[in-house]
Amino acid sequence: MCLNMALELYMDLLSAPCRAVYIFSKKHDIQFNFQFVDLLKGHHHSKEYIDINPLRKLPSLKDGKFILSESVAILYYLCRKYSAPSHWYPPDLHVRASVDEFMAWQHAAFQLPMKKIVWHKPMAANYNVFLNSSKLAEWRMRVELNIGAGLFKEAHDRLMQLANWDFSTLDPMVTQRICEFREKYL
Amino acid sequence: MCLNMALELYMDLLSAPCRAVYIFSKKHDIQFNFQFVDLLKGHHHSKEYIDINPLRKLPSLKDGKFILSESVAILYYLCRKYSAPSHWYPPDLHVRASVDEFMAWQHAAFQLPMKKIVWHKPMAANYNVFLNSSKLAEWRMRVELNIGAGLFKEAHDRLMQLANWDFSTLDPMVTQRICEFREKYL
Repeated sequence: MCLNMALELYMDLLSAPCRAVYIFSKKHDIQFNFQFVDLLKGHHHSKEYIDINPLRKLPSLKDGKFILSESVAILYYLCRKYSAPSHWYPPDLHVRASVDEFMAWQHAAFQLPMKKIVWHKPMAANYNVFLNSSKLAEWRMRVELNIGAGLFKEAHDRLMQLANWDFSTLDPMVTQRICEFREKYL
Repeated sequence: MCLNMALELYMDLLSAPCRAVYIFSKKHDIQFNFQFVDLLKGHHHSKEYIDINPLRKLPSLKDGKFILSESVAILYYLCRKYSAPSHWYPPDLHVRASVDEFMAWQHAAFQLPMKKIVWHKPMAANYNVFLNSSKLAEWRMRVELNIGAGLFKEAHDRLMQLANWDFSTLDPMVTQRICEFREKYL
């Protein structure tokens, strides 16, 4: 009997680390089951998900019995397991160290503060941050060209729809957490 | 002419990521010049240090012309360059991924919040956090046994002396930053 042991990826594409894992997997034709964990409905606090990741963070990966969290670790894992082209994680000592440096930096310096912005202005999803920065706009275009416009749109679709979301229907636990977060930090 | 191109490590052992890099280097007999960047005197904001790391964070590494920041990246770099025993970063796909997961997790979930605690109660340096937790105490003992009591003490010496520090002599810029930080987050 051949069991289908496809990779499970627990994600919500509202989260940038999830989008990174999603884009990387799609770009490399890695087969996976998309296990949707709805952040806005607080599904990351469900018992089922806490069994996967007690820290209630997204994304997580399940590969057979092996469970892994932290997007950086997941990206490295996918890179190694599926032998991604070496430009993703070059073997050269200095270049690889610079990739590690960027991965550690973006995690602490960019993703964590972004949470505050997202929670503070959830309806800012349709604000075009690229309008007043040619450097950002150029970078965005480069990313889109590299991963392909289709995949780029697909990965950002849920985020783009956030502007039309009815926040009054938010799960009470999520609303409470946003309030606590805003009171504490903003 | 043979130039002595020893590794330069920019550190202040008050910082836990610096202690990790220091302990790893000492444990593996890696020769380096200790470039002391005094956090309490605000030396990480000096022009000389900003040339090394524009983000003004510690630790940084300089190896010839190659400059690297982020403790996680530095540890991986040292591990690769000096071929540390494989138990530090095992080649097994799953075990290596678990190390990556821990390194990413501790960075965001532990080191960053710790900053708040350190700034909030700088005089808590002589508080024994191990007193009421046998698990923590057991872990601490295991670390000390593994790296050696001498190196353990050496790495924590500056932190232990913090309790006797005269905080009224703090650099004004550092005092102002602590005030801003406390106002914002605490």
